[in-house]
Amino acid sequence: MTKGRLEAFTDGVLAIIITIMVLEMKVPHGGDFKDLEPLLPVFLSYVLSFIYLAIYWNNHHHMMQTVTHVNGKILWANMHLLFWLSLVPFVTGWMGENHFTIASVSTYGIVLLGAAIAYWLLQRLIIKSHGKDSILALALGKDLKGKISPILYVIGILGAFLNIWISGIMFILVAIIWLAPDMRIEHALKNKTNKL
Amino acid sequence: MTKGRLEAFTDGVLAIIITIMVLEMKVPHGGDFKDLEPLLPVFLSYVLSFIYLAIYWNNHHHMMQTVTHVNGKILWANMHLLFWLSLVPFVTGWMGENHFTIASVSTYGIVLLGAAIAYWLLQRLIIKSHGKDSILALALGKDLKGKISPILYVIGILGAFLNIWISGIMFILVAIIWLAPDMRIEHALKNKTNKL
Amino acid sequence: MTKGRLEAFTDGVLAIIITIMVLEMKVPHGGDFKDLEPLLPVFLSYVLSFIYLAIYWNNHHHMMQTVTHVNGKILWANMHLLFWLSLVPFVTGWMGENHFTIASVSTYGIVLLGAAIAYWLLQRLIIKSHGKDSILALALGKDLKGKISPILYVIGILGAFLNIWISGIMFILVAIIWLAPDMRIEHALKNKTNKL
Amino acid sequence: MTKGRLEAFTDGVLAIIITIMVLEMKVPHGGDFKDLEPLLPVFLSYVLSFIYLAIYWNNHHHMMQTVTHVNGKILWANMHLLFWLSLVPFVTGWMGENHFTIASVSTYGIVLLGAAIAYWLLQRLIIKSHGKDSILALALGKDLKGKISPILYVIGILGAFLNIWISGIMFILVAIIWLAPDMRIEHALKNKTNKL
Repeated sequence: MTKGRLEAFTDGVLAIIITIMVLEMKVPHGGDFKDLEPLLPVFLSYVLSFIYLAIYWNNHHHMMQTVTHVNGKILWANMHLLFWLSLVPFVTGWMGENHFTIASVSTYGIVLLGAAIAYWLLQRLIIKSHGKDSILALALGKDLKGKISPILYVIGILGAFLNIWISGIMFILVAIIWLAPDMRIEHALKNKTNKL
Repeated sequence: MTKGRLEAFTDGVLAIIITIMVLEMKVPHGGDFKDLEPLLPVFLSYVLSFIYLAIYWNNHHHMMQTVTHVNGKILWANMHLLFWLSLVPFVTGWMGENHFTIASVSTYGIVLLGAAIAYWLLQRLIIKSHGKDSILALALGKDLKGKISPILYVIGILGAFLNIWISGIMFILVAIIWLAPDMRIEHALKNKTNKL
Repeated sequence: MTKGRLEAFTDGVLAIIITIMVLEMKVPHGGDFKDLEPLLPVFLSYVLSFIYLAIYWNNHHHMMQTVTHVNGKILWANMHLLFWLSLVPFVTGWMGENHFTIASVSTYGIVLLGAAIAYWLLQRLIIKSHGKDSILALALGKDLKGKISPILYVIGILGAFLNIWISGIMFILVAIIWLAPDMRIEHALKNKTNKL
Repeated sequence: MTKGRLEAFTDGVLAIIITIMVLEMKVPHGGDFKDLEPLLPVFLSYVLSFIYLAIYWNNHHHMMQTVTHVNGKILWANMHLLFWLSLVPFVTGWMGENHFTIASVSTYGIVLLGAAIAYWLLQRLIIKSHGKDSILALALGKDLKGKISPILYVIGILGAFLNIWISGIMFILVAIIWLAPDMRIEHALKNKTNKL
């Protein structure tokens, strides 16, 4: 039951974050197609952030399927993750409205990095409480994706000061890496079931 | 359990979309009945979009009743649907505030078309993973509604350049076609149960 | 399962409506206590609407406990109820910001009346599909509250043109009548259980 | 089932409150790091309120695990708690945007105090309906935390008129006291299980 409510709360927060982001796309006063043009950077930022939040939801969903019990520490680690994700609409709006300035792109990367670290911490705590033979631990293995992502984020954050395209490529690259996140856990779940 | 959380997340996002749309109706500064007048187009847009989102929720709800398992692809197809639907408040507000200009009405249709295609894709993936004898496949049959709707949307999108009433009629027509969406699946569910 | 998702969606929409209403209380620019003064009417409107939405949630919650199955008509009747309730933040903000003008108070009453009629329709459909001996039918009995409320609303709507205090008293009166709504259904549930 | 829906609704409202708070951080017009500076007080207020709401969610979650049945009074006591919490985004935004004036800091404390009293009332009603030997009653014991917090809030509310740092320290202190809230109930649940 505990787990159910943690999932429900996380779903609620993610659903709201993903939806209020669209409020940053202010309805233009003019009614022509050209009035949509200035919104293009905001729209592109929105698409990227939507994909990131969808990835987080998907991964969270898969991770929680391996979880059998939660404790106070896990609840707080989850809250910590939600805190970073709750900042996404703000940095998305800031980046979009200012047409990708160095500061806004770099700050966007910092928030993504914060969320990635928070997710990693949550994963650690779950594995710690479920044991090294738990499905999650087996599924992650060496967790290559989890190790590479922060490095790419840091390149993105610092790269913005040279050329914001470096950041753009890094942030898109991480998204692509994670777009197929489930295979590991889905396979691990199947293996575990087959062995029984 | 997977299915449950997919439904919960979808419910959350749809509930928020349907509710924040009303925020586009800005409270007028004057306090007389005549101050409500300029809001009429926004209100009518809101009613239409509310009905569309209610139709999507109803259909999604019926479709998911036939689903027994979900996979990564279905999760992403669902996210894709939510992406298009998340744009509805924006286009609703734009169309309403600019009193149904060609561009805004046409863009509204594009978003509806995008959502329809996304829904169709989701349906395809569910049928693919559940088989041609699945309840959903039997319920849809030749899926006449699903085939006609995109055509009507395209007429609505292009028709706006001739006369926005063409679009209006098309978008209302599709809504009417879908207002009683459940019968097929409800019947199919009954038939399946009766045969067992 | 159907019923569960109907409840979940309704909970989501009501939770959002109740919460975004508070966004109509715009943060004042000054930082003194006196800067809160102009917000008093908005705050009072908020309190009243909060109580109304809480009553609806409570009653919906009790009503759904007696429901064993839902159909397409019930889903749409529920959507219709949510439509009226979704207009509450708008009329609350309008009424509060314009310090209770005749038009805004009267419109507020119209939305409350619309919601009451929608609730009554939903109740009818549930009783129709569950039978006259259903717990809900027995619990409601002659449904005195349900019959008096619309009359009080109409007095409130028309009374605004004489004196807005008439409306105020009517709307508060209806809220008081409904504040203890559960007894009937709670008793009926107990009786039914005792008989078995 | 009743309990489940109470939890779901509370989760929904808390998820929305926690997320719309971030909307008070208005996206700055400039795109440099220095444009973020004026947002610092708003951000700090946001972090404090986020922690408070997370504490409430965590405690509510633990408290509800000990609950086996709910009644109309408990539903209303819960609504009363949500009412106070729904005011948090408003006072957070007011306090942040006005850089911690006496009035805004003091009002922030009043809302926290209101929520604390509402939580205490809810707890009372649950214990009353579950008995003095209930898990919750045993877990709370003399409820030292519950008794100290209101005193600290009052010091914070009145202290603002001397020096707003007094308030700041009090509000942070209460947060720290509650950050590890679960142990009591987690232990009580274990003890109860062990005895059986």
